[in-house]
Amino acid sequence: MVNTLFLPELKEMLAENNTFELQEFCTALHPARTAEFMEGLEAGEAWKVLRHADLKLREEIFGYFPREKQVEVIESQDRAEVAELIADLPADDRVDLLHDVKTEVVEELLPLLPAHERREILRLREYPEDSAGGMMTTEVAMVDEEVSVRQAIDDLTRAAERLETIYYIYAVDHDQRLDGVVTARQLLTALKKPEMRVADLMETDLIYVEATADRNEVTNQVAKYDLHAIPVVDERRRLLGIITHDDVIDAVRQEATEEAQMSAAVEPLEEGYMQTSIVTLWWKRGVWLTVLFVTAMFTATALHHYEDQLSRWKWLVIFIPLIMGSGGNTGNQSATLIITAMTTGNVRLRDWRAIAWRELRVGLMLGGLLGVLGLILSWIQTRHEEQALKHRLWPLVVPLTLVLVVTCGAVSGSLLPLVFKRFGLDPSLMSNPFVAAISDILAIVIYMTVALTLLSAA
Amino acid sequence: MVNTLFLPELKEMLAENNTFELQEFCTALHPARTAEFMEGLEAGEAWKVLRHADLKLREEIFGYFPREKQVEVIESQDRAEVAELIADLPADDRVDLLHDVKTEVVEELLPLLPAHERREILRLREYPEDSAGGMMTTEVAMVDEEVSVRQAIDDLTRAAERLETIYYIYAVDHDQRLDGVVTARQLLTALKKPEMRVADLMETDLIYVEATADRNEVTNQVAKYDLHAIPVVDERRRLLGIITHDDVIDAVRQEATEEAQMSAAVEPLEEGYMQTSIVTLWWKRGVWLTVLFVTAMFTATALHHYEDQLSRWKWLVIFIPLIMGSGGNTGNQSATLIITAMTTGNVRLRDWRAIAWRELRVGLMLGGLLGVLGLILSWIQTRHEEQALKHRLWPLVVPLTLVLVVTCGAVSGSLLPLVFKRFGLDPSLMSNPFVAAISDILAIVIYMTVALTLLSAA
Repeated sequence: MVNTLFLPELKEMLAENNTFELQEFCTALHPARTAEFMEGLEAGEAWKVLRHADLKLREEIFGYFPREKQVEVIESQDRAEVAELIADLPADDRVDLLHDVKTEVVEELLPLLPAHERREILRLREYPEDSAGGMMTTEVAMVDEEVSVRQAIDDLTRAAERLETIYYIYAVDHDQRLDGVVTARQLLTALKKPEMRVADLMETDLIYVEATADRNEVTNQVAKYDLHAIPVVDERRRLLGIITHDDVIDAVRQEATEEAQMSAAVEPLEEGYMQTSIVTLWWKRGVWLTVLFVTAMFTATALHHYEDQLSRWKWLVIFIPLIMGSGGNTGNQSATLIITAMTTGNVRLRDWRAIAWRELRVGLMLGGLLGVLGLILSWIQTRHEEQALKHRLWPLVVPLTLVLVVTCGAVSGSLLPLVFKRFGLDPSLMSNPFVAAISDILAIVIYMTVALTLLSAA
Repeated sequence: MVNTLFLPELKEMLAENNTFELQEFCTALHPARTAEFMEGLEAGEAWKVLRHADLKLREEIFGYFPREKQVEVIESQDRAEVAELIADLPADDRVDLLHDVKTEVVEELLPLLPAHERREILRLREYPEDSAGGMMTTEVAMVDEEVSVRQAIDDLTRAAERLETIYYIYAVDHDQRLDGVVTARQLLTALKKPEMRVADLMETDLIYVEATADRNEVTNQVAKYDLHAIPVVDERRRLLGIITHDDVIDAVRQEATEEAQMSAAVEPLEEGYMQTSIVTLWWKRGVWLTVLFVTAMFTATALHHYEDQLSRWKWLVIFIPLIMGSGGNTGNQSATLIITAMTTGNVRLRDWRAIAWRELRVGLMLGGLLGVLGLILSWIQTRHEEQALKHRLWPLVVPLTLVLVVTCGAVSGSLLPLVFKRFGLDPSLMSNPFVAAISDILAIVIYMTVALTLLSAA
């Protein structure tokens, strides 16, 4: 996956210490591409190349390095030079990055940073990485709501260099409390009346989040209101920072990956699959496989309990995986539908009655479908079994079981995520093992009860 | 979920036809909030309220209505008034919306639209909804690369009203071929030299997508390069439109939901869970449950084949669900890890050897873990079974089976998504049923083979 297209040339330039060509290389392309072409270099070599770019560009290219290389550069290169780079990184990325750097290195670097940046880092580090406070950047375009439009544009032009985005400009009062917002476009078109106060132009119906809000709330708000950026405030509505759309896109993608992994019973990976060590993979999967194994032990115990019946009617054994699978698959469908609907806000806790009623009906319909298939299948598989033919009602055992198991699977699969949510647990992580365990045991108990009832009656 | 806070007041205003208050209601809040408060109104009532907002605001509030209500309004209200609204909607949203409106209504509306908008709609309708062409808006800020900075700002200020975003301004040649990009900020700071040509200011290393590119490619590019918007070009690099970050966020979320549903064997829903009819839910789930059922039939056939052995050593039955479950869960973990890694570009087809080697090692380690648990469990469950105790090697059957089944599950689960990808099929949709089927049959065959070998040997 390493782009080696320019690697020989780059190494040659480094060997010759060809300043002109290295400068040219740094400036010619989009910083993301430049970073891509440097993937084959070691941390020390990459840093040597970067020193030929000015600070602003150096920071941009560095921002596109893979996380491990960033950490390696920071930990291995000259502290003073690294500190200069760190001081210039966007405040939100910087904090995330320093989370991954060895603590002793961070402690050596902090005193080398300007006092303002140091305070900023210490403040942002207090918020969890997946809270609004952890996602935000503190470099936000804000103006005093009392100044004129002309003054506001002047102020902003001076600040523009430093800011990640100037699409929205936030208007604050003397206490830095967030009162309104204007777009860059509104400000520009208002230049016809340059003496107008920002307070008279601004939109006051504001969408914002508190610093303690969790990642999912942020992404939902931004998606719902189609925002370019969302302001983050403290509990007294003072403006702390903004979360920009690129961080939201990253967050949505990360969330999706984590949810997919959790619902497949994998503890979310912190790095890419290929970058995760074998031992970490083993651990993050083994934990949940063990939980699932323990729940499957209950199924084994249930089966043990019915051992005599199963050896009396041994053709019943054939259909165990099929019946358990049908119940489990249906439960898994229901759980996933409810979890995705909760993530996008389509379903809430208080809808549980409506959900149970829907799943009861869908479950009966799905059970009916599989019941018909089960009738055909059990006839094909069992029509020559003498044991079975002795009982008049035998063809009904598998279909009837399927209707009941599938319906129970649908209802329990849909309600479990809501139960976990209700008790503050993560529905995606918790539901699957429990849906599997409950539907498996239900399947065995229902199957055996139906079989005993019908076959004893006949 | 309907917000009924202002519903009585709204209905009263409508009954009184209170123009002033209705106008006030439309303008006071963020359009998304206004739309929220109107959720309890019928299409006709909602349209009556909207007529009190000016066209621009009307269009914005309408844009936040749920899709069904939008369609209802369009199909039921006065064609000429509706056409006026449609002419003003952003080009990309408009086409998506018209996809859902009855064909005969669309055909009545098209002649009422200005010729330019009509052509636009017909052109955009040609792209599939989840291609770059289907996602883009044609309202894009572009300037001739030969004009001066001052001229460019003048041109843009005049166009600003109509445009969805002016964060990026695209520079094109006389043939509308995309040559470069400047940000609004660069243009503003360049005002120091107003006579400079746009061509001398613009960035020429461009990231763009072709109109035929699929949604996943678009989201990957935007996420990789942290773009606010990505330009869409035809095969001759002529600028057709842009895809803005809000559409990318929507696309990423939709993609995540669809992938989660697919991997739970649900055909993706087109609407929210609560809006989907019971029959549609039944159908979208029933199809895949049937496929899974058919694959489970093979497992039943395999079990049928071993019926005599199973009735000879009936304690073997107890562990069938546990062994099949462990293999299936491990395979599911591997498949999900590979699918999410492919979505984010962390893993490619050509990495298959490295992946198989990783999964072989992780699989052996996981199998070892579960094997130890299986040893303990089978000892607890079987220690009083006379049949088992007759054989010296019986305690090894379950652990050894688990090691083999889990390892096979890990390797096959990781390779199947790659195989499907290789043949142009959707890995998320196809993998799970097949992983389940393959690992189930493997589990039975391995279990029986191990049992026969060890128990006959002893």
